[in-house]
Amino acid sequence: MNDLKTINLNADLGESFGHWSMGDDSAMLDIVGSANIACGFHAGDPMVMRATLLAAKARGVSVGAHPGYADLQGFGRRPQALSAAEVEALLIYQVGALQGMAVSEGMAVTHVKPHGALNNQACADRPLAEAIVRAVKALDPTLILLAPACSQLAQAGRAAGLPVVDEIFADRRYQDDGQLVPRSQPGAVIHDPGQALIHVRAMLDAGALVSASGHHIPVQAGSICIHGDSPDAVALARHLRDGLVTSGYTLAPLTAMLTI
Amino acid sequence: MNDLKTINLNADLGESFGHWSMGDDSAMLDIVGSANIACGFHAGDPMVMRATLLAAKARGVSVGAHPGYADLQGFGRRPQALSAAEVEALLIYQVGALQGMAVSEGMAVTHVKPHGALNNQACADRPLAEAIVRAVKALDPTLILLAPACSQLAQAGRAAGLPVVDEIFADRRYQDDGQLVPRSQPGAVIHDPGQALIHVRAMLDAGALVSASGHHIPVQAGSICIHGDSPDAVALARHLRDGLVTSGYTLAPLTAMLTI
Amino acid sequence: MNDLKTINLNADLGESFGHWSMGDDSAMLDIVGSANIACGFHAGDPMVMRATLLAAKARGVSVGAHPGYADLQGFGRRPQALSAAEVEALLIYQVGALQGMAVSEGMAVTHVKPHGALNNQACADRPLAEAIVRAVKALDPTLILLAPACSQLAQAGRAAGLPVVDEIFADRRYQDDGQLVPRSQPGAVIHDPGQALIHVRAMLDAGALVSASGHHIPVQAGSICIHGDSPDAVALARHLRDGLVTSGYTLAPLTAMLTI
Amino acid sequence: MNDLKTINLNADLGESFGHWSMGDDSAMLDIVGSANIACGFHAGDPMVMRATLLAAKARGVSVGAHPGYADLQGFGRRPQALSAAEVEALLIYQVGALQGMAVSEGMAVTHVKPHGALNNQACADRPLAEAIVRAVKALDPTLILLAPACSQLAQAGRAAGLPVVDEIFADRRYQDDGQLVPRSQPGAVIHDPGQALIHVRAMLDAGALVSASGHHIPVQAGSICIHGDSPDAVALARHLRDGLVTSGYTLAPLTAMLTI
Repeated sequence: MNDLKTINLNADLGESFGHWSMGDDSAMLDIVGSANIACGFHAGDPMVMRATLLAAKARGVSVGAHPGYADLQGFGRRPQALSAAEVEALLIYQVGALQGMAVSEGMAVTHVKPHGALNNQACADRPLAEAIVRAVKALDPTLILLAPACSQLAQAGRAAGLPVVDEIFADRRYQDDGQLVPRSQPGAVIHDPGQALIHVRAMLDAGALVSASGHHIPVQAGSICIHGDSPDAVALARHLRDGLVTSGYTLAPLTAMLTI
Repeated sequence: MNDLKTINLNADLGESFGHWSMGDDSAMLDIVGSANIACGFHAGDPMVMRATLLAAKARGVSVGAHPGYADLQGFGRRPQALSAAEVEALLIYQVGALQGMAVSEGMAVTHVKPHGALNNQACADRPLAEAIVRAVKALDPTLILLAPACSQLAQAGRAAGLPVVDEIFADRRYQDDGQLVPRSQPGAVIHDPGQALIHVRAMLDAGALVSASGHHIPVQAGSICIHGDSPDAVALARHLRDGLVTSGYTLAPLTAMLTI
Repeated sequence: MNDLKTINLNADLGESFGHWSMGDDSAMLDIVGSANIACGFHAGDPMVMRATLLAAKARGVSVGAHPGYADLQGFGRRPQALSAAEVEALLIYQVGALQGMAVSEGMAVTHVKPHGALNNQACADRPLAEAIVRAVKALDPTLILLAPACSQLAQAGRAAGLPVVDEIFADRRYQDDGQLVPRSQPGAVIHDPGQALIHVRAMLDAGALVSASGHHIPVQAGSICIHGDSPDAVALARHLRDGLVTSGYTLAPLTAMLTI
Repeated sequence: MNDLKTINLNADLGESFGHWSMGDDSAMLDIVGSANIACGFHAGDPMVMRATLLAAKARGVSVGAHPGYADLQGFGRRPQALSAAEVEALLIYQVGALQGMAVSEGMAVTHVKPHGALNNQACADRPLAEAIVRAVKALDPTLILLAPACSQLAQAGRAAGLPVVDEIFADRRYQDDGQLVPRSQPGAVIHDPGQALIHVRAMLDAGALVSASGHHIPVQAGSICIHGDSPDAVALARHLRDGLVTSGYTLAPLTAMLTI
């Protein structure tokens, strides 16, 4: 249980590309404490990365790398089958690129959160999770791994001694085993801001994932993932933030969650 | 003039891509003191970058980033017209990616040398040169800029306070203004190893670029660029190295040239 | 002069990419007679191309290929320097790909209009224009080349015997030499739908380009280019179409303009 | 059984990319009757495609499209998970592009053979095979589908009424179910030209796939696939061709195999 009632909100940002925009990054950056910034393989480009870093800096939002598969057309959401060595190199390249962009603006990348299909596969595939963890650790063993609660990714990170923060999803229902209800099933996604707040508060209060059937799996969630690419994203995010603050929660960047 | 008779040899390496090979990196790494490693935009990919870094590490060869235009098909040799901001972001992204790869192997990137059309354009275009210099300096003001002697790029680097090492070309003739004779002109490229050694020694002895017509432009060359992608590259490189050693030159990595 | 008062409206469509959307293609397809469909190099992907073809087919809108430089990040708007052979191959590949997509839906590509920087450069560079013309002619000498009035591209097409339709821009001012006023200059772009209609009618009535200073250059414009990627694009397009119809113009697909 | 003793040899060609070369296309084109030409997604680019088409034309070698996954770094050998609609569009785009290149040189694409992981997956996955077949048929129902004997791909093609030619591999051993012995197993690949010829003749004489254990599966092979990207490829191909001719076989382009 999170006795101090401090929580982080994170969102995937910087997912525009060239002349194409995605999401309302500016509005989301006013709400979240940490931004997962796309690194140019599934979304983002060097210009977008820099602009997103600067927008985060201006608001004191902590920044992390959000590396994904090399798949602009599929937005990194299509599963791939890479070797462990390929995954390591893919991760290090992308995180290193964002680190360079950050350093050049006097900033530091403080966490890593894999994107899309890479993240989903790593939640269930321990060797893939371990390849990601090796990459992060080799780059900088103080980088925070932001990983879904109960996932192989979170477990692999802890086993390797990386600082790990567990995240829960505000707008997604869970199965009894802690996995997300697939989007293809009815009720998988929560669209109503009020319902999302109730869902999140129930999990934070219980110190557990609460499945759609009411099953509890103890987790100490340090961060809530808010999706930024749907039309209603900003409204849901605002409602969630305001509801948490009203409930006595203090919002913090991810870097503050490790010491709690 | 280089009184201590110490000189660096550098070559562009890691220019394979996926299943396609280019050059004999292994043989060249046995000869040069510094490697300019492609960063994935005009050549190289994360797997190639890592393999090249490790091969350089095994031989004590210092490594630099060799960023280019995003143009795999054209190998970065086709001129582009980017804004200064685009060039800065392009550079920082690529150098940062290689820095990440290097850090993950316990190595450090110690110099930057732009590739192909980007380098050629920056040698003649001061604002472009300055964009490159800003990018390098923002990343790390101790990074060595390896730039053609007499170029706008070298001048912009010095004006900004970056450590700059001037390079001369072993296999290319110069015009009286210090620019290379265009490849389209007869005699522009020196294919004979013996001629290349004579060309290089003449310039080192004179402390000057020596043009095809015999004109001298004083420069303190710290590095000799050896091309690695032609069939005869290794033979020419070996002849050059052996000839310089026989002539009393000590070969050194680029990082050693600044204090000389 | 266009005595029959028949005119074509064309727009660049299918410029979404993967998960990123651009413009309101559906609304624009209800207005225009011909669609220039991006071919995957500067925008568009095979899925977007097919969807755009089907949407055009449903409305009887004629389709053309809109090939551009290989530059997704720059949306094909950044000048490049390719050889004539590279430009020919680039064009043929992209137009061929769209032809394949069209054939598989029982449709036919009936025109070609280059995109962005490629088009701009070809308007002023006769050898580049001729490379484009050779590519189109080699693929199918009955393909209509849709080219800016007074451009080298239009002239090269006519010289080679290709069917050419001259287009004028509804929202751009002209210089006295028939070139567009650069976007960087004040007044270059017309944002007001009423002004755009007046501008277009003046040119159609005069059978001439009318420059910002009032200078006339006789042209027989067969098509009006409407931009679809600005927020006000649809409103301007509707106003223009309605105004032309009210003025007695008949709107037609590009394929109908050759016989007029 | 192939009573007329006519057989086709095919090879994957045009797999260079930009400045990177692969294989000895010129030597292979002197041996084979049909070339499967990469279409720019896993290998090849518009310039390489054109050069390969012209080299095939000069030798009377029939040409087919060799479309693959969008994966230059992995050479299209890494499995992906695309929707059926994505596969269809991917195929049509690539085949269409090559058709355009061919038409512009007065040639015609007469067959299609998927590449690498796409081909391997389609050999075992019927819905994927059917997506490929739909794409080919939609483009041109007279295109020959060149598919591994006994595969789901060959079966799906026949079920849809496409002309299908079964191919066998000269340098690969088969399992009893007609699938290839995985490369990871010893003896999977035949390197010795003499052994490859014996392997091929045994299968042609028997009118059957002959597995490593001696099991026969009746097939009427019309083509023999020869790999061109290994150092010994040309020697093996020559030995195979000469041996077949000596044995009384007539070699023919793929287009001649349908009527036999």
